Amino acid sequence: MFRKVLIANRGEIAVRIIRALREMGIISVAVYSEADRDSLHTMLADEAICIGPAPAVKSYLDMDRILSAAVATGAQAIHPGFGFLSENEKFARLCTEVGVKFIGPKSETIAKLGDKAKARDTMQKAGIPVIPGTDGSVKDVDEALKLAKTIGFPVMIKAALGGGGKGMRVSRSEADFAENFMTAKAEALKGFSDDSMYIEKYIERPRHIEFQIMADSYGNVVHLGERDCSIQRRHQKVLEEAPSIFLDENLREKMGNAAVSAAKAAGYENAGTIEFLVDKHRNFYFMEMNTRIQVEHPVTEWITGMDLIKEQIRVAAGEKLSVSQKDVKIEGHAIECRINAENPEKNFAPSPGRITNMHLPGGNGVRVDTHIYEDYVISPFYDSMLLKLIVHGKSRDEAIAKMRSALGEIIIEGVDTNIDFNYEIINNPDFIKGDIDTSFIEKQFKMQ
Amino acid sequence: MFRKVLIANRGEIAVRIIRALREMGIISVAVYSEADRDSLHTMLADEAICIGPAPAVKSYLDMDRILSAAVATGAQAIHPGFGFLSENEKFARLCTEVGVKFIGPKSETIAKLGDKAKARDTMQKAGIPVIPGTDGSVKDVDEALKLAKTIGFPVMIKAALGGGGKGMRVSRSEADFAENFMTAKAEALKGFSDDSMYIEKYIERPRHIEFQIMADSYGNVVHLGERDCSIQRRHQKVLEEAPSIFLDENLREKMGNAAVSAAKAAGYENAGTIEFLVDKHRNFYFMEMNTRIQVEHPVTEWITGMDLIKEQIRVAAGEKLSVSQKDVKIEGHAIECRINAENPEKNFAPSPGRITNMHLPGGNGVRVDTHIYEDYVISPFYDSMLLKLIVHGKSRDEAIAKMRSALGEIIIEGVDTNIDFNYEIINNPDFIKGDIDTSFIEKQFKMQ
Repeated sequence: MFRKVLIANRGEIAVRIIRALREMGIISVAVYSEADRDSLHTMLADEAICIGPAPAVKSYLDMDRILSAAVATGAQAIHPGFGFLSENEKFARLCTEVGVKFIGPKSETIAKLGDKAKARDTMQKAGIPVIPGTDGSVKDVDEALKLAKTIGFPVMIKAALGGGGKGMRVSRSEADFAENFMTAKAEALKGFSDDSMYIEKYIERPRHIEFQIMADSYGNVVHLGERDCSIQRRHQKVLEEAPSIFLDENLREKMGNAAVSAAKAAGYENAGTIEFLVDKHRNFYFMEMNTRIQVEHPVTEWITGMDLIKEQIRVAAGEKLSVSQKDVKIEGHAIECRINAENPEKNFAPSPGRITNMHLPGGNGVRVDTHIYEDYVISPFYDSMLLKLIVHGKSRDEAIAKMRSALGEIIIEGVDTNIDFNYEIINNPDFIKGDIDTSFIEKQFKMQ
Repeated sequence: MFRKVLIANRGEIAVRIIRALREMGIISVAVYSEADRDSLHTMLADEAICIGPAPAVKSYLDMDRILSAAVATGAQAIHPGFGFLSENEKFARLCTEVGVKFIGPKSETIAKLGDKAKARDTMQKAGIPVIPGTDGSVKDVDEALKLAKTIGFPVMIKAALGGGGKGMRVSRSEADFAENFMTAKAEALKGFSDDSMYIEKYIERPRHIEFQIMADSYGNVVHLGERDCSIQRRHQKVLEEAPSIFLDENLREKMGNAAVSAAKAAGYENAGTIEFLVDKHRNFYFMEMNTRIQVEHPVTEWITGMDLIKEQIRVAAGEKLSVSQKDVKIEGHAIECRINAENPEKNFAPSPGRITNMHLPGGNGVRVDTHIYEDYVISPFYDSMLLKLIVHGKSRDEAIAKMRSALGEIIIEGVDTNIDFNYEIINNPDFIKGDIDTSFIEKQFKMQ
């Protein structure tokens, strides 16, 4: 096992990792920016090294400084957390080159799964359903229409470089196809100076359901059940739960097997997540694979009783998985809300500042992962997440009741937060029924 | 189900109960003393009523005021928590008389189990092993010796009114019996003006192992496994864990069955605990039954996944038990430390005062039940418990590592605490091995 591990991150995930290391008897090394001198991760770690000024590009994204810190402190491994350098294949490669273990998959695996076309190709070859679509860009409107008819309406017309809704149009039938295609193409040219267009199946009101997998370096892979992350705002997850009430045992097994096959096909090691879209007929399609631990990992931890961070560290140190698939038992229901310093009334604008007063809920079935404390100053330089509030109940109803109670109790003063926004979600009748898809927030809150 | 419930308690257990009520959609009514105006339970509850001045006898122990508060607010039930009026048969009876449900066993049951002789008698008739001893006081030294020989050495010579170690002597053989008997008798006369003496088997280095039971009003009783509470200081529990590593499946089943039989024999309803002493040969003896929820209930909650407070409320409202014995599954290992405002260096003298700064641990497998917050003033009027720190791991070793980490992280300033004392226990090699009995603290810390 490692004697010393460096955490190349900040905030609650750095705290989470430091605690896991401490429990394992491993010395923790924090890196911090000048803005994070008083951050909890800086204070909690056994050792802490300042790696530069506040902007992430000069500290948390500066590979040389982080690697130097690792070498200087004698850290044998680096845990990248999520965000920052966690899915950077170059960083993973440089770690290996300086003789420090990157706690995550191999650099080549990150590269392969980070390239959408390659990832799609890998999955298709492994027999994982992908969203039906053109393999490359289409020549013109005639070829596009022919392909659309093969795929079947409705289809999504998509600019290769599209993003943020631009250069994208849904076509529901042959009749409206040409017009939508030409509009999207024109938009793409104007917006991205490139009008290469793709056609893919339009999944209506999909659910975002992802499977956590864990793989060791001996070819063993298990899945730890799914998380339903359909509650999103602009493709940002807001609330996650596990299990998904949309899956029955049969579909869970099918998707779980697909997730394991996907990981095996990619030669995957360590923790990873296979994201699927699931349509209303319960067809599922591979979307992408995230090659790191995720923000929402605690819901999986609570229903499986596993510690994913410790498992990541053990597997990276060359140990075998601590469980086989048949040992994985799902117990109860867990929900996570991400509490951010932001103002939902002002289009979720970040709200940095000093926490002047706070009270966090606790007790039975309530977990809080956070790096904030009274008088802590939320920096404008980093993401606005203040804490993750995770609850567990015997049933989904009990978990919802617990989250309602916990959200009602939490007090954070000095900055604006999305606590009320989460409270509205948790009390929404459609949410309570489980009638959710990725358009839930847009529809329920009349916002984009 | 009840619409409104009054909590006849304060501190963390009041907060615990308020949260359970909130999750169940039941209105909570707090009662508070003048000293508890700023207490968390007062602020958290839906309604709060001041019931008098700080001394408990004028507020939390004043039955009339509490019953008046219940009637005035229209509360349909009272949860007594632990301590205060929780095991007061008169209070339970008065509740019934004013038409308010007492959340606990019937008044008669409390009376029967509160009287040590009656309880012992009930258990013996139900076939539960009790500590072998004389049924009443002995006439003189000759009769005493005869009985001691029947019981078998070593024996404990005990004054009927003895306490605090006075009027008690251990006799290890016939040779030292008479002298010890006469000394104890003289001490008893001097100390309690009564020299009635009993003889009972002396259990050497026993473990304190207790079984949580839950019973409904339809005669269903389940046990929820055991808790090892051997780590005590002057018969006060300091640290509790579940399961006990001293029990194997066979003994667990035997003791569990005895606990269920004990509850049935007593006509028990609601949550209760049967405390046993277990000797080094794994013989177990009934000690007493506690007719209330206990401080250490969270360790049982964590290994069983049950919510004992909610179950108490449901059972009191006439519902059947939510589980049968075969549904009860024990998962992992839980440990609780009681963090008190006291100074172990000064013979554990209470240390009231203002909390000037605090940081509590959190994250995976860590639960904190508390009523304190920054700037809260610990009152000298009540017990000194600040918080309960509960951890859960897959194994006892993992739970110990987690507690070590959590105790290392916790910060409470402004009052003295026993955090370091708990830290020493958790790091003690004998504790880690599980080589513990009720004399652990006395021996390890050279204190009484």
